[in-house]
Amino acid sequence: MDKNHEMWNKLGMDVEKHDMLCEVLPGAFGDVFLSQENRPKGMDYWNMVVGDIHGIRPAELIEHQKNGGKVVGTFCIHVPDEVPIAAGAIVTGLCSGSQFWVPGGEKKLPTATCPLIKASLGARFDRTCPFFRIADLFVGETTCDGKKKAWEILAEDAPMFIMDIPQMKRDEDFEKWEAEIKRYIKRIEELTGNKVTEEGLRKAIHIVNNKRKALKRLNEFRKNDLVPISGKDVLIITQVAFYDDPERTTQMINKLCDELEERVKNKVSVYKPGAKRILLTGTPLSIPNWKMHHIIESLGAAVVCEEMCTGIRYSYKLVEEDDGADMDTMVHNLAQRYLGSINCACFTPNHARIDDIVRLAKEYKADGVIDLNLKFCNLYDTEGYFVEKELNKLGIPVMGIETDYTDEDAEQLKTRIGAFIEMLD
Amino acid sequence: MDKNHEMWNKLGMDVEKHDMLCEVLPGAFGDVFLSQENRPKGMDYWNMVVGDIHGIRPAELIEHQKNGGKVVGTFCIHVPDEVPIAAGAIVTGLCSGSQFWVPGGEKKLPTATCPLIKASLGARFDRTCPFFRIADLFVGETTCDGKKKAWEILAEDAPMFIMDIPQMKRDEDFEKWEAEIKRYIKRIEELTGNKVTEEGLRKAIHIVNNKRKALKRLNEFRKNDLVPISGKDVLIITQVAFYDDPERTTQMINKLCDELEERVKNKVSVYKPGAKRILLTGTPLSIPNWKMHHIIESLGAAVVCEEMCTGIRYSYKLVEEDDGADMDTMVHNLAQRYLGSINCACFTPNHARIDDIVRLAKEYKADGVIDLNLKFCNLYDTEGYFVEKELNKLGIPVMGIETDYTDEDAEQLKTRIGAFIEMLD
Repeated sequence: MDKNHEMWNKLGMDVEKHDMLCEVLPGAFGDVFLSQENRPKGMDYWNMVVGDIHGIRPAELIEHQKNGGKVVGTFCIHVPDEVPIAAGAIVTGLCSGSQFWVPGGEKKLPTATCPLIKASLGARFDRTCPFFRIADLFVGETTCDGKKKAWEILAEDAPMFIMDIPQMKRDEDFEKWEAEIKRYIKRIEELTGNKVTEEGLRKAIHIVNNKRKALKRLNEFRKNDLVPISGKDVLIITQVAFYDDPERTTQMINKLCDELEERVKNKVSVYKPGAKRILLTGTPLSIPNWKMHHIIESLGAAVVCEEMCTGIRYSYKLVEEDDGADMDTMVHNLAQRYLGSINCACFTPNHARIDDIVRLAKEYKADGVIDLNLKFCNLYDTEGYFVEKELNKLGIPVMGIETDYTDEDAEQLKTRIGAFIEMLD
Repeated sequence: MDKNHEMWNKLGMDVEKHDMLCEVLPGAFGDVFLSQENRPKGMDYWNMVVGDIHGIRPAELIEHQKNGGKVVGTFCIHVPDEVPIAAGAIVTGLCSGSQFWVPGGEKKLPTATCPLIKASLGARFDRTCPFFRIADLFVGETTCDGKKKAWEILAEDAPMFIMDIPQMKRDEDFEKWEAEIKRYIKRIEELTGNKVTEEGLRKAIHIVNNKRKALKRLNEFRKNDLVPISGKDVLIITQVAFYDDPERTTQMINKLCDELEERVKNKVSVYKPGAKRILLTGTPLSIPNWKMHHIIESLGAAVVCEEMCTGIRYSYKLVEEDDGADMDTMVHNLAQRYLGSINCACFTPNHARIDDIVRLAKEYKADGVIDLNLKFCNLYDTEGYFVEKELNKLGIPVMGIETDYTDEDAEQLKTRIGAFIEMLD
């Protein structure tokens, strides 16, 4: 038995079933990523990471646990990574982006639940994802009806901690979110046995901000007329950033950015001249959900920005850094950043997201906007009314797409998106 | 033109379209209600009320407005009726229970939204419900994703006030709900120009408690082995209680209860001996949604209790009354009652609802439980997992039903529910 299988066995995984995933993933990755022409050399790191996605990082997490460390799994970018990091724990994203896990979730959840939530429960209950076996604590949140109730079921099998996210963004809601972060700190201190100190939290804020800065730097290249990196590649980098070691991922992104700077100087683009520029907005694209990017870019267009949790929302605002800040101030700064600058459709009202889309469409010179909705996400689906209304008013072409993790609608999507891109001419 | 049409015209309604509803409603009411054998005489009041449902009460509301009064429309039993009543306003329920309004809602909302929400928006945007024209203020809440986002769209056309309901029931959530009730008081004071005084609020609590007591008294009769009133009739009484004058509705319910007391003495039942007793639980049944009761009772079974917003949840806990209470104490008491004793699936965790179902099934001697879900209500649909699990554990027969406002599935439901009832033998 190879080392990975040994590890998966020890984790109590359904190895036979998991092998089915291992069989198809490399092919899918090859088709979507490796087939691209003229990729930056720096992408080799991510090829390696994704090539052994359930091997390398899980082994690191287990090593950390062997040394007494804890691993905290999260599902949402509202949950501050800084807290576990400050307590010496490792944070890993747990959102699931493959149809492979959906049927397992449907055994517990209504079919009319978004595929991301169904896949997340399926990954745990089917025992087919090492990250879902390794995590010592699963941190859920009350961002949407589907997640809020799914965590109750997940809690039957996994140790859960739920953060109650406000539904509005008034002053009292920021105070409430500060209190939730303080609850989170307590829970993480209990879990790890380590105190979250001012120094630890300050350092953690710095580490995560550095990752944000690197991702921001990466995204800036996409504003160029000649784009030196594909949307697909930025997507996989962002997806990996959710569970990779933050300092290593920062270093690798910055190294890649150095290469991209050279490319810009040399006027290198990965797209053909005149490629139409698409801003994607909407629900998150969890790894390995590459469907939309693959369809759009295979049609010759460029995804230049994702106004998504797996995109700009993840990185574009930093936590305020202040070397003299005490604990309360740092928690305040975390609350400001994690509540204030993420404009998820779970908030009411949420005009700020519409403003973001309009601003980003201009900044990234988008020719058109695709408003993507994961099936049965009522929040983004309903907010789509305002997205379309505002963009129509401004004369920015927009198309709403609803899809899930299956490939059944791929041909239909190609036709519809193809027609949309042609219309942009 | 008759008086009603004159009024509807003045309200800016789409009278022609509304006439289509007026044409079918009396027939539906006749089929479902008037066809019942051996009804209590006291039901004449509700026959009269529903016979002119868009006439009598709207005219009263308009008369109130002519005298300088305000009308407040609400969508949820978490919103305290006592506040507008204390300020001299009239409260009216606005939830919509007919397929007639759904297509209008679907023009603005995703199809994958529950029919109750779609119908509510349709009733406003299609201008086919007088209550949706008359209300001076529409009070929404953030109980579910669908409503939370739908109110943003409704706010484009109607004056809205949103109460942010907590998603948990910890001490801090009760404090938060008290603050929301205080915000509501301020808004109602602005709207009406009247101060919510201690005396006014005390009186309002008393008025609404009296309605609750009458409804509780009515429901108690259903615990008898010989049930003197049908589930359908209790349903229509409850539905009407949401918008009728509270003191009049209390009086009429109590008068009916006097008659039911006689029936109990005389061992009169509306059901055939051995009729199976069904507890309904789940999503609300807004007027004129009588589908489930009609199917169940036409099959010879008895609906003996509704663990629903349009049922027991609406009435079974009183607001604490204390003649010496000051404003803060009364708001505290309102918060305790309106947050603490309504176990909507919007809360996490929500074990208390499962406990309620089990307790009510025993109290009302239910032979079986039907867990009803309005299509696309993810909250109740997901919580159904726990409902079924717990009832199965206790050996109480349970069936999950998902349906909407259309009649398309009526035959299929009859077959399924028929088989379930037979299985109870």
